[in-house]
Amino acid sequence: VLPYPLGIVEKLAISTSSRILLVVLDGVGDVAASGKTPLAVASTPHLDDLARDGSLGLSTPVAPGIAPGSGPGHLSLFGYDPFVYEVGRGVLSALGLDLDLGAGEVAARGNFATVDDSGKIVDRRAGRIPTELNRILIAALSAAIREVDGVTIDLHTEAEYRFVVRLRGDGLGGEVADTDPGRVGEPALEPRPLGDRDADRRTSRVLQRVVERARQVLAELPEARDAKPAVNAVLLRGVGQAPSLPQLPAVTKMRCGAIAAYPMYRGVARLVGMESVPMDVSGEGERTAAKLAAYRAHASEHRFLYFHVKKIDSAGEDGNFAKKVAEIEAFDAIVPRLLAAQPDVVVVTGDHSTPVPLKAHSWHPLPVLIWSKVARPDGRAFTETECRGGSLGMMRHLDLLPLAMANAGKLQKYGA
Amino acid sequence: VLPYPLGIVEKLAISTSSRILLVVLDGVGDVAASGKTPLAVASTPHLDDLARDGSLGLSTPVAPGIAPGSGPGHLSLFGYDPFVYEVGRGVLSALGLDLDLGAGEVAARGNFATVDDSGKIVDRRAGRIPTELNRILIAALSAAIREVDGVTIDLHTEAEYRFVVRLRGDGLGGEVADTDPGRVGEPALEPRPLGDRDADRRTSRVLQRVVERARQVLAELPEARDAKPAVNAVLLRGVGQAPSLPQLPAVTKMRCGAIAAYPMYRGVARLVGMESVPMDVSGEGERTAAKLAAYRAHASEHRFLYFHVKKIDSAGEDGNFAKKVAEIEAFDAIVPRLLAAQPDVVVVTGDHSTPVPLKAHSWHPLPVLIWSKVARPDGRAFTETECRGGSLGMMRHLDLLPLAMANAGKLQKYGA
Repeated sequence: VLPYPLGIVEKLAISTSSRILLVVLDGVGDVAASGKTPLAVASTPHLDDLARDGSLGLSTPVAPGIAPGSGPGHLSLFGYDPFVYEVGRGVLSALGLDLDLGAGEVAARGNFATVDDSGKIVDRRAGRIPTELNRILIAALSAAIREVDGVTIDLHTEAEYRFVVRLRGDGLGGEVADTDPGRVGEPALEPRPLGDRDADRRTSRVLQRVVERARQVLAELPEARDAKPAVNAVLLRGVGQAPSLPQLPAVTKMRCGAIAAYPMYRGVARLVGMESVPMDVSGEGERTAAKLAAYRAHASEHRFLYFHVKKIDSAGEDGNFAKKVAEIEAFDAIVPRLLAAQPDVVVVTGDHSTPVPLKAHSWHPLPVLIWSKVARPDGRAFTETECRGGSLGMMRHLDLLPLAMANAGKLQKYGA
Repeated sequence: VLPYPLGIVEKLAISTSSRILLVVLDGVGDVAASGKTPLAVASTPHLDDLARDGSLGLSTPVAPGIAPGSGPGHLSLFGYDPFVYEVGRGVLSALGLDLDLGAGEVAARGNFATVDDSGKIVDRRAGRIPTELNRILIAALSAAIREVDGVTIDLHTEAEYRFVVRLRGDGLGGEVADTDPGRVGEPALEPRPLGDRDADRRTSRVLQRVVERARQVLAELPEARDAKPAVNAVLLRGVGQAPSLPQLPAVTKMRCGAIAAYPMYRGVARLVGMESVPMDVSGEGERTAAKLAAYRAHASEHRFLYFHVKKIDSAGEDGNFAKKVAEIEAFDAIVPRLLAAQPDVVVVTGDHSTPVPLKAHSWHPLPVLIWSKVARPDGRAFTETECRGGSLGMMRHLDLLPLAMANAGKLQKYGA
């Protein structure tokens, strides 16, 4: 039996034609350190209309006090207990680069770094090299390191000092320790196997060889050797394999689709079995027009549609209150176009809070609204404070999937 | 150790003379799709008096989004986690007919059905035959099928196309699959054993023989053969044995009684060890006078008394708003007569919501009030909206037993 809520949902789910829209306003929750939150300051007439006819609450993504990354935050929104289902940093980074990660393949996050003559780490980020230099270094490393012991190696620039390494081959394991000790003044660690499996030992050996070869290549490469500080080492962390997750369409009897501008969010959605709705992925930023075009063309094909909005989080990460207000208002303006597809249930919340004063993901519970014809109408606006008194009370993100499906008439009665 | 809350209650319970009254307003919760809920519209001065001096909250019977049947809804009210303690449909139906189901005995729900010449199901309910015909068919089947392989068989009309079969004998198991495939165009299934136990195989064989004999009898019986459509098969589902539940009097050190007009509710109460308070069970419907007479005569004998009110749910199932209001008001009018017995703690809630717009059980959390001399007085009326802001917050039905006992001074301090 699958863990809550997937197990009970699987048992009770029935296939119906009703449609659920889940809008994720990334990082929307805030704390109003002085006065009102961005959501309370923003003019959001369309969200407030939905809220007034719907049920409100405050929802904890993972557990009280736990600030989730995007992976756990989204998994919990989709009904996957993030304490049960873990997705490593390397896998998330690979998904963020739109890399496929097949069964048994391994990904790890890499840092370009600087070590001294004795091998001790001087700078874990090699002076935050520009992305352009990263691309040059990755091109050189890729030419030199293609295969180790029958395992195909490929390397991909992420941004600044960050890259992703992917291993493809037989008999690889994902339980291998970080080589990044997390502080300067110490040497890099070995990528030692964390378990007793041959597969983990094999991955460990391959990564050890990748690290050694990378040092040799960087030592010979003028662009790396002459940088200030010199780029002369790589650190790895978050080694892992894509987890094999229960698939949402099978569990819920819903065809599930995802609309997101950033590959990482599409990637997490694919992990749980959602289809990426076809969209124009050229361009930068929120790409609202492309997302709306994809929504208009494909919304009715899916019984569960996840719609991701990114820039509210970015404004929070920047500590930019006015920008966060503006991004929330920009989303509010497109709400009528989302409702035009006539979803039966609309859920609006975020994957985590990103309070302006913190400039980072936080643990604060998120405002949530569930609108449907059979939701209790709370008659309140969509703000943190108003949601606090709503009829959903204090809830958990894990409860959203069964609540949304119940509102859509997709769950049978439990027991006689 | 018993699961929460029974384990901790068993550990801390002390026997005192204080008395708890649990009133279950079946299906009372609603959603106010347009305006107010029936509970908000109803004039309930006595409930509102209790509420003002008591603590209020909204309580989830099983889990968010889960619409419970009467069995799980009541089990959770009594402190039994319905994900741990399951009561099958056959058992509930048997209890609903006031049949005793002893240890090891088996019950199953039956449908009279219609199959075509090739044995495929044409109508799973045989045209929803009238109850009178059901009685004739059951009489004929009862005469022909009395015993199989040393197991005593008895059959009982429920209503329309529905009946109950009970097996009494040695070595029977309850883990046997439904024969009803749940859709037409397919043949009935075998009642195959779900486990690997001899007892389940024995029940499977006996039920197989019952099904075959029933077909033979129906084929020869003019009333069955000539019905339109013909009644020529039986389908079984919800095979099971009465679960052996921890007994509430032993766990809580309270003598526990139940007052309910409908046998199924008395039956669920008996499963957890409550006594059925003697009452005049003749007549139909709510039987308020008979219940009040029983209450007046026996309330003081019990430390925990469960008082069931049915017709509020029936009005919800009918989608009849005015009737639901009237039934709530009818209950409010008898509150003074319940208080006349001077219970120390009064709990009022429902086993599940039955919103008028849904005409069915739903997942919506229920208004709950706990009145006692030591409850925090919330100064609010007894409606869904007012309960939302009460000092019990959002809670679960499983929390009600320990809360009621604490208010009654029946739980010792936990730890030193």
